[in-house]
Amino acid sequence: MATIGFIGLGNMGAPMAANLVKAGHRVNGYDVNAKVVQALAAAGVQAAHSAAEATRGADVVITMLPAGEHVRDVWLHQGGLIEAVKGSTPLLIDCSTIDVDSARVVTDAARVAGLEMLDAPVSGGVGGATAATLTFMVGGSDTAFARGLPVLQAMGKNIVHAGGPGAGQAAKICNNMMLAINMVGVSEGFLLAQNLGLDWDKLFQIASTSSGQSWALSSYCPAPGPVPAAPSNRDYAAGFTAALMLKDVKLSQAAADATGSPTPLAAHAMSFYQAVVDAGDGGKDFSVVFRRLANLNRQGQA
Amino acid sequence: MATIGFIGLGNMGAPMAANLVKAGHRVNGYDVNAKVVQALAAAGVQAAHSAAEATRGADVVITMLPAGEHVRDVWLHQGGLIEAVKGSTPLLIDCSTIDVDSARVVTDAARVAGLEMLDAPVSGGVGGATAATLTFMVGGSDTAFARGLPVLQAMGKNIVHAGGPGAGQAAKICNNMMLAINMVGVSEGFLLAQNLGLDWDKLFQIASTSSGQSWALSSYCPAPGPVPAAPSNRDYAAGFTAALMLKDVKLSQAAADATGSPTPLAAHAMSFYQAVVDAGDGGKDFSVVFRRLANLNRQGQA
Repeated sequence: MATIGFIGLGNMGAPMAANLVKAGHRVNGYDVNAKVVQALAAAGVQAAHSAAEATRGADVVITMLPAGEHVRDVWLHQGGLIEAVKGSTPLLIDCSTIDVDSARVVTDAARVAGLEMLDAPVSGGVGGATAATLTFMVGGSDTAFARGLPVLQAMGKNIVHAGGPGAGQAAKICNNMMLAINMVGVSEGFLLAQNLGLDWDKLFQIASTSSGQSWALSSYCPAPGPVPAAPSNRDYAAGFTAALMLKDVKLSQAAADATGSPTPLAAHAMSFYQAVVDAGDGGKDFSVVFRRLANLNRQGQA
Repeated sequence: MATIGFIGLGNMGAPMAANLVKAGHRVNGYDVNAKVVQALAAAGVQAAHSAAEATRGADVVITMLPAGEHVRDVWLHQGGLIEAVKGSTPLLIDCSTIDVDSARVVTDAARVAGLEMLDAPVSGGVGGATAATLTFMVGGSDTAFARGLPVLQAMGKNIVHAGGPGAGQAAKICNNMMLAINMVGVSEGFLLAQNLGLDWDKLFQIASTSSGQSWALSSYCPAPGPVPAAPSNRDYAAGFTAALMLKDVKLSQAAADATGSPTPLAAHAMSFYQAVVDAGDGGKDFSVVFRRLANLNRQGQA
């Protein structure tokens, strides 16, 4: 079993670290919020008083942070983690969802320092983190992936090697960008059905077994009723928040801008998630975009 | 077995009529193009010299026509089919894909004349029409649906009762509108992946088993490679043509306008299918929208 330094013990990081302990690993945890570190003592996570301290003696160092700026800061700044682990050769894994450029900058710096690193963003949310059923989308070399696999398997169920450095982040934002579009599209379809007097259950029955099918429709229908487990039936309690979806679509648009990629529907869809967040619903499930469209409908602002 | 009048023997209507003969029905066929009627003699379809003649002695009268104007014209104009069948009480079935309003106008006229009518647009294309594996989305009363079911089963595999009059048309355009959006979204995702250096097969492997999944991706991937059976691997040979998709999205937008429904992504997606048709690719499969976006990408017109 490995010694693992874990930096970033928020809503996702905390249960992920706890699952590593459950799997028999020794985990040294650090977070800027000392309270969450203390709270994890009961789960068997050893408290470290700095990020650098958490990496001492580590075979693997994992970060789970909010955004690219935090990831660059923690790994690269003077006295940052890449400097801290020099001399030993732990495997580095960043599980944050960040921009592809930041992921590649940090991975390059690790490579220059003679270290192997994986970008391994997740999907599955807090529920998946707690149940150790996350999906990891992993970028990095074959050898680094092989090294990281057993550790990732303690936190997730589906571990996919997407390609070289940055490929994990690329896969996540491409997937979530398509999801963001599909969800607005399903919302438009169900609103139009309602206005045409077509029953939602009938549209669901037809489209979920036909060419209009999508995960957004079949598993997460934003109109209440057809999918009982969907957040639409619980006043859009998340689930995957609109704020996080907005973050991911923004990352996709930053990547599209940087590479000159035409993503017109994604840009259009983003404006709806932005409007949801601006209206104070960022903490609701992202499928709440249906309710926003329904409000536009009622107001005749189509 | 029934006597069936069949009006409209084009690419879809001809194999549908032939399948009715195969199932043991007597079919009297008519089309404005006398040649297609003659050609169907070999399949056992009796030639009628007018639409009205095709309805003589019919238990069921079926129309399969290009657009709402033709359907209204054939059924409603002076000497039209509703007048022609007065005195007998055949079941009327319109299998054309038309606007919801035209469908309801014709159904209302039928009702006033004491006749039962179904709107029953199909999906599955010429291949489905030939193999008798079409999906029928059917609007109309329970009794009319029960009466029509055995006839529709001779031409299709999946017969869904979507609701009252017009519900078949509503279901088809809502489904196809969602499909139109999903297809552009998948195209954007695969182009962004390419520009980020993410392998298409990897994105497919991840997204087809994740929240980004859709029929447009899993069964019909517009980027060549991941789905060998998809038109993208045959230079976008249809399949379902871009011209027909444009027709359906236009119907959805007409319905959205008429009901004040907000369908912003559908309107945006429509502009891409329009551009494909304007560029002379209306006969290609609708997934050719990927190639259009890829061209924009190369031209830096993102």
